Amino acid sequence: MVQQTRKLVYRFDEGDANMRNLLGGKGANLAEMSQLGLPVPPGFTITTEACIDYYERDHQLPERLWDKVQEHMQLLERSIGREFGSTTSPLLVSVRSGARVSMPGMMDTILNLGINDQIVRGLAGLMGDDRPAYDAHRRFLQIYANVVMGVESSTFEEILAHRKADAGVQLDHELNPEQLVGVIGDFKEAIRNATGKDIPEDPWQQLLEAIQAVFRSWNSPRAIAYRDHYSIPHHWGTAVNVMVMVFGNLGDDSGTGVLFTRNPLNGQRDLYGEYLSNGQGEDVVAGVRTPDPISKLSQRHPHIHGRLSEMAHQLESHYKDVQDMEFTVEGGRLYLLQTRNAQRTVQAAVRVAVDMVEEGLITPEDALRRVNPEELSQLFVPQFDAQAREKAVSEKAFLARGFGASPGAATGTAFLDATRAADAAKRGTPVILVRPETKPDDIHGILESKGVLTSRGGVTSHAAVVTRGLGVPCVVGCEELQVDIQARLFTTTAGHTIREGEDISVDGTTGEVFAGSIPTSQPDLEELHEAQLLLSWADKTRRLGVMANADTPTDAQRAISMGAEGIGLCRTEHMFLGPERVPVVQKMLINAQEAERWEQEHPEASSDRSPVPELPVAVGEFHKALDHLKQLQIDDFTGILRVMGERPVIIRLLDAPLHEFLPRYEQLVRELVEMEAGEASHEELRSREEFLQLVESLREANPMLGHRGCRLGLTFPAIYEMQTEAIITASARLIQEGIAPHPEIMIPLTSHVNEMHRLKKGLSAVAERVQQDMGTKVKYLFGTMIEVPRAALTAGEIAEASDFFSFGTNDLTQTTYGFSRDDAEGKFLNHYIDKEILPYNPFVTIDPDGVGALVRIGVEQGRRTRSDLEVGICGEHGGDPASVAFCHREGLDYVSCSPFRVPVARLAAAQAALESSDQEDASRTV
Amino acid sequence: MVQQTRKLVYRFDEGDANMRNLLGGKGANLAEMSQLGLPVPPGFTITTEACIDYYERDHQLPERLWDKVQEHMQLLERSIGREFGSTTSPLLVSVRSGARVSMPGMMDTILNLGINDQIVRGLAGLMGDDRPAYDAHRRFLQIYANVVMGVESSTFEEILAHRKADAGVQLDHELNPEQLVGVIGDFKEAIRNATGKDIPEDPWQQLLEAIQAVFRSWNSPRAIAYRDHYSIPHHWGTAVNVMVMVFGNLGDDSGTGVLFTRNPLNGQRDLYGEYLSNGQGEDVVAGVRTPDPISKLSQRHPHIHGRLSEMAHQLESHYKDVQDMEFTVEGGRLYLLQTRNAQRTVQAAVRVAVDMVEEGLITPEDALRRVNPEELSQLFVPQFDAQAREKAVSEKAFLARGFGASPGAATGTAFLDATRAADAAKRGTPVILVRPETKPDDIHGILESKGVLTSRGGVTSHAAVVTRGLGVPCVVGCEELQVDIQARLFTTTAGHTIREGEDISVDGTTGEVFAGSIPTSQPDLEELHEAQLLLSWADKTRRLGVMANADTPTDAQRAISMGAEGIGLCRTEHMFLGPERVPVVQKMLINAQEAERWEQEHPEASSDRSPVPELPVAVGEFHKALDHLKQLQIDDFTGILRVMGERPVIIRLLDAPLHEFLPRYEQLVRELVEMEAGEASHEELRSREEFLQLVESLREANPMLGHRGCRLGLTFPAIYEMQTEAIITASARLIQEGIAPHPEIMIPLTSHVNEMHRLKKGLSAVAERVQQDMGTKVKYLFGTMIEVPRAALTAGEIAEASDFFSFGTNDLTQTTYGFSRDDAEGKFLNHYIDKEILPYNPFVTIDPDGVGALVRIGVEQGRRTRSDLEVGICGEHGGDPASVAFCHREGLDYVSCSPFRVPVARLAAAQAALESSDQEDASRTV
Repeated sequence: MVQQTRKLVYRFDEGDANMRNLLGGKGANLAEMSQLGLPVPPGFTITTEACIDYYERDHQLPERLWDKVQEHMQLLERSIGREFGSTTSPLLVSVRSGARVSMPGMMDTILNLGINDQIVRGLAGLMGDDRPAYDAHRRFLQIYANVVMGVESSTFEEILAHRKADAGVQLDHELNPEQLVGVIGDFKEAIRNATGKDIPEDPWQQLLEAIQAVFRSWNSPRAIAYRDHYSIPHHWGTAVNVMVMVFGNLGDDSGTGVLFTRNPLNGQRDLYGEYLSNGQGEDVVAGVRTPDPISKLSQRHPHIHGRLSEMAHQLESHYKDVQDMEFTVEGGRLYLLQTRNAQRTVQAAVRVAVDMVEEGLITPEDALRRVNPEELSQLFVPQFDAQAREKAVSEKAFLARGFGASPGAATGTAFLDATRAADAAKRGTPVILVRPETKPDDIHGILESKGVLTSRGGVTSHAAVVTRGLGVPCVVGCEELQVDIQARLFTTTAGHTIREGEDISVDGTTGEVFAGSIPTSQPDLEELHEAQLLLSWADKTRRLGVMANADTPTDAQRAISMGAEGIGLCRTEHMFLGPERVPVVQKMLINAQEAERWEQEHPEASSDRSPVPELPVAVGEFHKALDHLKQLQIDDFTGILRVMGERPVIIRLLDAPLHEFLPRYEQLVRELVEMEAGEASHEELRSREEFLQLVESLREANPMLGHRGCRLGLTFPAIYEMQTEAIITASARLIQEGIAPHPEIMIPLTSHVNEMHRLKKGLSAVAERVQQDMGTKVKYLFGTMIEVPRAALTAGEIAEASDFFSFGTNDLTQTTYGFSRDDAEGKFLNHYIDKEILPYNPFVTIDPDGVGALVRIGVEQGRRTRSDLEVGICGEHGGDPASVAFCHREGLDYVSCSPFRVPVARLAAAQAALESSDQEDASRTV
Repeated sequence: MVQQTRKLVYRFDEGDANMRNLLGGKGANLAEMSQLGLPVPPGFTITTEACIDYYERDHQLPERLWDKVQEHMQLLERSIGREFGSTTSPLLVSVRSGARVSMPGMMDTILNLGINDQIVRGLAGLMGDDRPAYDAHRRFLQIYANVVMGVESSTFEEILAHRKADAGVQLDHELNPEQLVGVIGDFKEAIRNATGKDIPEDPWQQLLEAIQAVFRSWNSPRAIAYRDHYSIPHHWGTAVNVMVMVFGNLGDDSGTGVLFTRNPLNGQRDLYGEYLSNGQGEDVVAGVRTPDPISKLSQRHPHIHGRLSEMAHQLESHYKDVQDMEFTVEGGRLYLLQTRNAQRTVQAAVRVAVDMVEEGLITPEDALRRVNPEELSQLFVPQFDAQAREKAVSEKAFLARGFGASPGAATGTAFLDATRAADAAKRGTPVILVRPETKPDDIHGILESKGVLTSRGGVTSHAAVVTRGLGVPCVVGCEELQVDIQARLFTTTAGHTIREGEDISVDGTTGEVFAGSIPTSQPDLEELHEAQLLLSWADKTRRLGVMANADTPTDAQRAISMGAEGIGLCRTEHMFLGPERVPVVQKMLINAQEAERWEQEHPEASSDRSPVPELPVAVGEFHKALDHLKQLQIDDFTGILRVMGERPVIIRLLDAPLHEFLPRYEQLVRELVEMEAGEASHEELRSREEFLQLVESLREANPMLGHRGCRLGLTFPAIYEMQTEAIITASARLIQEGIAPHPEIMIPLTSHVNEMHRLKKGLSAVAERVQQDMGTKVKYLFGTMIEVPRAALTAGEIAEASDFFSFGTNDLTQTTYGFSRDDAEGKFLNHYIDKEILPYNPFVTIDPDGVGALVRIGVEQGRRTRSDLEVGICGEHGGDPASVAFCHREGLDYVSCSPFRVPVARLAAAQAALESSDQEDASRTV
């Protein structure tokens, strides 16, 4: 059997840092440090495979494991010359969990194991002091009873409190040995009362139970929840590290501390950490004593500080990364208990990466690999003005803290309903949308809001995912809030009440929520030296272009400042919205059908579009509205193209189904019922009824798959013709001003090449006419979105009529899976992700097997027809690092995403390029 | 230039039957007959290319054409020794259109051309009779003025009527030569009045104008409409046949007739046709004389009859098909004017095909190729009882005639609203749905109706397409009806009024509509000897299996009688409908969410599903309803499986979104508003509001892409578990009865293999348990629909968990194109087809490039994983001949379609097999 040959236990000096999967992160690093000759207390690691075996055997230890543990304990005894269970020279051990990746605080650790009423006396002799020995015993009982036997911690805290009161002292360590003996007695009695059992006196029994308890703690509810949250597989298991106990509380030449090799907050190159003289780490955690900054150690124990400094340097040089070290000094002797790559802020990560390149420690490529693209976005988003934030804190305006789900700070008026929020925003009010949770129905509110705050949901909730893609600051899961939709207010557990209409401020980086308005400011991009340097390396490294989605001159400006090389998606829907435009659009729609019908019957009239008296009224009204919109669109496009200069701007012609520009059917029905009951005039009623009929005629069973995109452009040609006229007119004007714009006209929702042929013919004629009228030649490209499977499958044909493709992977994901995003997320997609039916949310990270296969087919076939076909993706995947990597691998030309996510995409694209060249290197060496 | 080398005019003896594209059908056959040595009057054909040129040159004759025509006229003169334009021995010609395919009556023909006031006298001398000569002149003026100059026919009819009244005669041919001269004078005057011009006296001018008029008639509105209707390309053009006139009205040894070599109504092997002695074909058409049956000719002119009989045999042997011949006898000399493959009823087509095989004229393979699969379905559908129909006719119950769009006769109560129709049908009333036109919204009514009648729309309208797929008789485009939805009645132009609730009868084969109920009967399949024989050949020839879609024992029985080899799709949705089931289903749904939630939180309870007191009420109610449904489902499946015996039965688990089992949201809102205004009790209101909330929670933005199919099965596992339990229980019972059923459990809407893995695990466990409980082993397969692109793209993975695939090409077409069928057909699909943006309706004929590519990928990847994977398609494409051919080519195992379309599929599959082997032969010879 395989099992027979497997090694279940490793001495620290048998492993190394590469054995993380088998030994856990902690075990592997302890092994590595042992290999480096650093002073690690002797110990051994029980492998993660042993843990997996334990679960597969239904909570039985693997065969031979206990024998092996006993053998290794003997090795420990020999190495330090003490004996486990000895009443004269006892060896105590710690038993610690340690998974492949750090799961801080999620699993269990037992310290001071191997003690009992007899042994404690031997320990006291060894320490030369009773108090720390009895204290160790007390601590052991407390932690063991809790971890192994499930006794509530509060039981022990109450006893301690009671005993301290009796003794007239405030702090645990003020209890003298006799008092501690009393505490120990009380503890034992409490354990017996709670469980009907005693803690085993036999150290071996203690060890056996402790190992199993650590195994079990892998599947504790909190550990499972943590892994769910961070998408850590449940089948990895934890290793168990058994290590000789060293004591930092044996006098002034003892102590304990934590050390970062650089500042983990800002990345400065100073030792950073804390040291507690004559104490144990738990004392710091328990808040009973305050540690000193590490710099104090250099004054009091310069030798130890010097040694630590050397070790820090050694470890950093070895790991080539900032280290987070734990150490203990026992009687003047220094022990390293743990080292790991330090957690740090993104500011620190960027600074360290750049510094280490300058120090020659790592290459720019290494630096690029070191920074998480997702986190990088935090640096580029609006932030609270620091002083204003301080003032808010001092004025107790702090309300609560949730999860920062989409970085950046925002301030505005709280609205508790998406429609009211959207309406207010359209009137110019900056809005923060506050909901228990958001649903797809709320999207119109989210789109218009400066920030979003929800009381429920995690970092993968609807609100989180949508805002991240949009670059809207968002705080989720702020459970201290109770949102009362009916009453239009929310309260905090601390007693604040905020009513709809009052200002609040949210920080989607930190998760903080404040009452009142805290001014925000865009980060000064000039000041982000290191980040800009890093991104400049990224730009040299990446092959993929990075463009931005932007619909306004402001967005376009931001896109450029974020490093976008052009606009990959300029939607024109928003240009049909806005309070002054909606009535015009509605007038156009009301008359569109009749006008189109009339024009089809009178093809001779289409050469002259200006209304003449003999035309039916509808035709005149239609063209009047259309002309009005054309003038507005010319200004829209002029503004954006001017900002972008010579950079490409891909403009998507109208995509939305027409009913999106009309009131909702249900709302109209209700209004009509109310009007009938009220005192509306006959005319008012009739006009409303006609309007209702229009809305009804445009209603759709499945609008996602309905009359939208180029289907509109073909059935109502006048709309696309107007937009094309506006684009070419705007471009020609700019050329006359001396700017050379690069507009690209993009057709949405193509499914058959004939759609493109027809539109190309009709719209080229319009473009030609405008150029002639204006006497100016405009260079433009004509292409299409690929967003239904048929377009990808027949891309070879479609490329005949397209200069470029832009994969609309949002819609493509919907049609490829047959998922309506609006319906899926609320109804079954969360269930699918929770239950691991889907490995991830395909709307966040592109599905490489299905949607990805279509992208692959589309690129390949398209380029076969037209080798210079420009191919990119737009939509939220364009700002997702894993999806950016996919696009790199598939040879796309660019990704396009929200301006705020452009730095993310730049870095992710560079990482993808590095990964590919790594793989090429690897395949060359093979 | 190419044109210089192109031959624009062919003598009849220069061409042959293969030159149909160039010479038109008529020209090619005249040429072929000439080649065969049959007595065709001399003539020549102007090619279709000349016609196309004519249009390309903007209505100018191609260069040199007129020279060539003149040359060929000289050849004619020489061959018969008369002269065109001669006043002593004049040659007259006919000028006839003739396209690639016959377009009867759609284009123009000019007879007796080459006549004028002088020539007529020479003609009279030649004929030895003045009357036929002046009659020919009169006819020429009439037809030429109408065709070439656009004078209304009625002008001439009025003059004739006037002149006949003056002469005191009834019939045209009773006018004597002097009176005809008067008519001719009047005609000329009328022409001058109408057009300001005279008919040219110059025969050459007449010929030139006539040729151009025939060219122009290709694009007459009625010709364009005809081509649109029958999907004939508009760019083919027509040929022009110029032929020496022969006269059947020169005495008793002259005459004219039409002959079919076999009876075109029933296929019997007798000469069939009509002969008019001493007359011209027009006289028959004009109804002024009644022809004799052809058999009379054998008595009066046995020699001619004998010669005709020989020619009929010669032509049939030559063409190996029934011929439809036109002939004229001029002074005892027989001329064949035309032959073509005879139009015939499908009965005749089948009979002739089978007979010709027995006669050794053609092979069984030829016979299979001869019959149109689409038409074949007419033989297998219900028909009116012949006597009852006669009685209805005699009682003037005939109402109107439209287009027969889906064959078969049906009788029932007229309903003018789909919902009222569906409701009545559920109460057991046989229903005929009558609408101006149907829309996707009406589908629930169509599904429940015995027949459908629309006043608008053609054979590709929504009603036509849907009913054809379903095998529901349907008459469309019945424009004599005025349907008044508001008044709930329809009237006919003849003055009948039918109110909703009255019985009507429709015949979807003939297009007839009757008032009252005419009993229908299923055709006696035993009596369809020839068709059964033909289908037995088809079964030997085809490789594709043919299954039927059937949801009830009655459907299953019909499927077998139609030759289905199994059930390819047994939907279970209908089993959740029906008046006694809907309340149970609703009770289940109301409690489902709470029950599922509770069970997820109490996994320990799921082992015992019987309600126990401590369960929440909702859980108990849920399982009570589920158990009730299970008992009903066991009976459903037992019934179907018993009928099908050992044949495979593929049962699709519940697919429909849950809201389909609930009232519509809008309706509930209205009800609630009414209840609020009325006197409903507080409880009633509250319960209704709760119900509304449920409906609201299940509403979807895009239900087509929503919470349905296996997404339901995974989020509410109890439903599929119940269905599986019912299937296995029913199967086990039948096994205990000695029947060996072959159920196949099919999962709808799979998009990821994990869905299949989960469901397979859960449902196999249920199946295992039932088998153990019942002590009976059941053989069943477990597979999936492939109906979203991702399933096809990842078919290799999905096949790991599937024994079979069934392509659901209805849904696959929707998701591949991104078309919601419900929305597309009303809003843009018709436009796309009208404007030829799409070459055909992809919901009728499978799209080989997009949807077809996915089928190809799915089959290939699926079989790579599992070489014995069973692969078929279900849905409407399965009964469409072109799609059946596609399935054959792609190597599918079977198609499944409506029982009434099974014969269509059997024949189409055979034709596909023949086509493939033809192609293989061809590629071998190459």
